[in-house]
Amino acid sequence: MGKGKLFVLSGPSGVGKGTVLDKLLSDFKDVQYSVSATTRKPRPGEKDGVDYFFLSREKFFKMVENNEFIEWAEVHNNYYGTPKIFVDKCLAEGKDVILEIDIQGARQVKKLYPDAIFIFLVPPSLNELKRRLNHRGSEDEKNMKIRLNNAEDELKEVKNYDYKVVNDRLDDAVEKLKSIIIAEKCKIREEDCQ
Amino acid sequence: MGKGKLFVLSGPSGVGKGTVLDKLLSDFKDVQYSVSATTRKPRPGEKDGVDYFFLSREKFFKMVENNEFIEWAEVHNNYYGTPKIFVDKCLAEGKDVILEIDIQGARQVKKLYPDAIFIFLVPPSLNELKRRLNHRGSEDEKNMKIRLNNAEDELKEVKNYDYKVVNDRLDDAVEKLKSIIIAEKCKIREEDCQ
Repeated sequence: MGKGKLFVLSGPSGVGKGTVLDKLLSDFKDVQYSVSATTRKPRPGEKDGVDYFFLSREKFFKMVENNEFIEWAEVHNNYYGTPKIFVDKCLAEGKDVILEIDIQGARQVKKLYPDAIFIFLVPPSLNELKRRLNHRGSEDEKNMKIRLNNAEDELKEVKNYDYKVVNDRLDDAVEKLKSIIIAEKCKIREEDCQ
Repeated sequence: MGKGKLFVLSGPSGVGKGTVLDKLLSDFKDVQYSVSATTRKPRPGEKDGVDYFFLSREKFFKMVENNEFIEWAEVHNNYYGTPKIFVDKCLAEGKDVILEIDIQGARQVKKLYPDAIFIFLVPPSLNELKRRLNHRGSEDEKNMKIRLNNAEDELKEVKNYDYKVVNDRLDDAVEKLKSIIIAEKCKIREEDCQ
């Protein structure tokens, strides 16, 4: 049994990373979700070590100090991070791990795991993203413009990725993601050539 | 729409390439089977241009002379070849093409299509290959030894391939093959980065 592979799912905000990943994980058991750490309180039904590692702020910042996160960020006054030890343990056990993360986080991951497989989830088109944002009904003209400019910039990041998956129909996007994982496991490794 | 991709399915004789490919093609319509040319007579139900291009010997050897085959070979006094024009036309139309071929043929394909995706189908183990050969009941001890030696040599070819698929359970092998095709279509291309 070889080492596991790390898959990184990223893409512009609002593209549907979470939905695609949830569906993948419910269909496909051969990949381990990378559990994040957070300082926010568990919601009803959430389990420590499954949904998140729930940490005190003290513990969280100790881990930040000790460089124990692959990346971390603040969102709405709570802190979230990806514990390196959890990912490394899974990989060493030969498990494949999938990590869902925003584009800035993905850049951090690339520095630490240059051999990870980077998958970029994109909307079918900028127009479609606009339509989806419009649909939310919460965007004024100016905010919409900023968001679309950001999305255009973010879409240029694709050049740093290995695969691109268009999130047009959910089932298709999930099948593509699953196919990428299965195919990567079939790639010839050095140990096959001995 | 970009150019199509060429997929080459190869592996030791007896490993089950034809069975895996037949099942793939019946499940999955997004790839075009590379139709071979042959000098043998059509069997009942076989259609020209679908199962084979049925050619006279004269026509076949004219094509050989004109380098119109990617590769060709003689089997039981009939001739078989892969017409280059058919493959090239499909690729230019943006269709993905899959070619099933023995290991020597695959080497020829690699010279003409270095960017093709090479997939190696292998038995679960040499012991399993032995068991399968034993099962045929038509091999004496000496022939068996020669075949197994050949298979061992052939398995070393894996280093020239991009992917390895173990033909353990048929459905799994077909799913892997299909996943490789889907994943390859998601790979970032130069035109994605402009």
